[in-house]
Amino acid sequence: MENTKLQNEIANKQKSKPSTLIFKLPPHIIGRYVIVGTKESQGPFKNYFKHPIVEKDFIKLTYEQAECKILEETIFNAIHNAKLTLSDIDVLVSGDLLNQITSSSFAARKFDTSFIGLYGACSTMAESLAIGSCLLDGGYFKRVACSTSSHFATAERQYRAPLELGTPRTPTSQWTVTATACSVLSASGNGPIITSATFGKVTDFGIADPNNMGVAMAPAAMTTLVAHLANTHTKPEDYDLILTGDLGKLGSDVFVDLMEQEGYKLGQNYSDGGHMMFDINQKTNQGGSGCGCGASLLNSYVLDKINDGKYKKVLFMATGALLNSLTSQQGETIPCIAHSLVIEKGD
Amino acid sequence: MENTKLQNEIANKQKSKPSTLIFKLPPHIIGRYVIVGTKESQGPFKNYFKHPIVEKDFIKLTYEQAECKILEETIFNAIHNAKLTLSDIDVLVSGDLLNQITSSSFAARKFDTSFIGLYGACSTMAESLAIGSCLLDGGYFKRVACSTSSHFATAERQYRAPLELGTPRTPTSQWTVTATACSVLSASGNGPIITSATFGKVTDFGIADPNNMGVAMAPAAMTTLVAHLANTHTKPEDYDLILTGDLGKLGSDVFVDLMEQEGYKLGQNYSDGGHMMFDINQKTNQGGSGCGCGASLLNSYVLDKINDGKYKKVLFMATGALLNSLTSQQGETIPCIAHSLVIEKGD
Repeated sequence: MENTKLQNEIANKQKSKPSTLIFKLPPHIIGRYVIVGTKESQGPFKNYFKHPIVEKDFIKLTYEQAECKILEETIFNAIHNAKLTLSDIDVLVSGDLLNQITSSSFAARKFDTSFIGLYGACSTMAESLAIGSCLLDGGYFKRVACSTSSHFATAERQYRAPLELGTPRTPTSQWTVTATACSVLSASGNGPIITSATFGKVTDFGIADPNNMGVAMAPAAMTTLVAHLANTHTKPEDYDLILTGDLGKLGSDVFVDLMEQEGYKLGQNYSDGGHMMFDINQKTNQGGSGCGCGASLLNSYVLDKINDGKYKKVLFMATGALLNSLTSQQGETIPCIAHSLVIEKGD
Repeated sequence: MENTKLQNEIANKQKSKPSTLIFKLPPHIIGRYVIVGTKESQGPFKNYFKHPIVEKDFIKLTYEQAECKILEETIFNAIHNAKLTLSDIDVLVSGDLLNQITSSSFAARKFDTSFIGLYGACSTMAESLAIGSCLLDGGYFKRVACSTSSHFATAERQYRAPLELGTPRTPTSQWTVTATACSVLSASGNGPIITSATFGKVTDFGIADPNNMGVAMAPAAMTTLVAHLANTHTKPEDYDLILTGDLGKLGSDVFVDLMEQEGYKLGQNYSDGGHMMFDINQKTNQGGSGCGCGASLLNSYVLDKINDGKYKKVLFMATGALLNSLTSQQGETIPCIAHSLVIEKGD
């Protein structure tokens, strides 16, 4: 078929919104664990991040080996936190930022269980929880571990430049968070429950600057949130918290504007994980980013607040910029995606 | 938790086999399309590969842009082959070999539908069909497009060396197939049906040579096939065809030996996509590899034979080597995986 025919059909296609999956038997989050880097453990969430990395454990490892080791320990401890043993886990669903998601695949060697590898850039935690929820709600498995990781030093040298070069950071840049997170989902339990999920669509608004990913991702976040609210007949004020993954300060400002153009006014209950992660003295420009950013906040602060009864209903939406360093060099724009989940206090 | 505790628990854990999912409402493959490179179109399957690439269409594109463009056209044509329009597709499930699966993510921009990005290296077609089947059988979506791609020139320069260097190929190497494939799955229809799936586990037998991936993957293939046969109470001879993804000549010989050690004798009904893809004059050493290798054979030759009634029950198992070029440089061994599916003639 000629490519012009494809172009015509795409031009004529009515724009559709992604559908939202409502879980009949909402999976319970029965265990979780987070490890963060030193910088993250000194930021605004220091009281919620209970497991900072022990730097001396990583002296002889490469950055990539360190990221993998932290992820292994996180998955293992999340399983223990769920009061389970390794044999109780039916499948591990994981992805990360490294080429060929090697942190996840290499960590998976330790767990002797079925493995589903994902790539959704910084949207991975939401993608893995959404797939894990389908696999449980659909009756295919009983217990699923969903995990992700990111690491400042591995991401910088893969996507931008080795840290040793001391390359200046642009004003719109974000700081890749060193953090790993794992949630253990179960068909039964008494933890917080995942009640619905929306798999976003790939959206590209023509931004080509790989140092401005928050703004690049804002339209994808808007598309998914508008769909999720419309599909579930809810309004932003129906949620105690709407948390986007890592749009950063500038990206979340753009996202709020885009939502307003669509007729939705986001209020005090809206926050962005990237914007929240560091304080201004930590000099991260627009804030944090990376798979571990939203994932670590979800699995510490947010789920703590749900367990405490402060939050009853949270919409978590992780966003991802689906570029690689070669596509930027070839002048391509940045396709982005956002997946959302609703997490509620279980019975 | 100390790492020694993790090591102890792993050492003491009873080895388990992956479980097999049996679909209650087996999804139908209602549309499919394959595009192959020039070399592939001149090999043993030339009569089944009806859509070789038109080289002149790609003159001004980079190799990566070319791979993405072929994948777009493949997905589009598979949807048309299913007699559907773009709006009928609920979700695209896709992955590929490129860093950050950019062929899939960039192609997804064109389809204005929910997107689930996967990474399973050369196991991707089986992974995407298995996830797509869960999403349909579980009642979450009505129509899912599952796709993958690989390209000789993009893979060579990313994983090994740019072609322009003319680097010699080792005797154990395989030739990354230039091919894209897409299957459209539907909850109803009259195409071949996917009746069961096994998500494999990550297996690493200590092979570190990135030019010997067929042998590295053979133990993962053995693990998954033994689990699938045991879980479904079937024997190898119950299948008209057992097709592994791309172990190549040497890898599939090792796989046959490993299966024999486990008590299963594979006969004439066993073939490997990598071994079959090229003839000996095409000088590919151990044969083909890449996501597109098994995927293109499945979506042409195999499904043709099922539709013709020659095959009634096929076990398709795609295998993946989960390394990247940096892990090889850091001296790591190669974790591998295999996912399997049973495809049968529908009613």
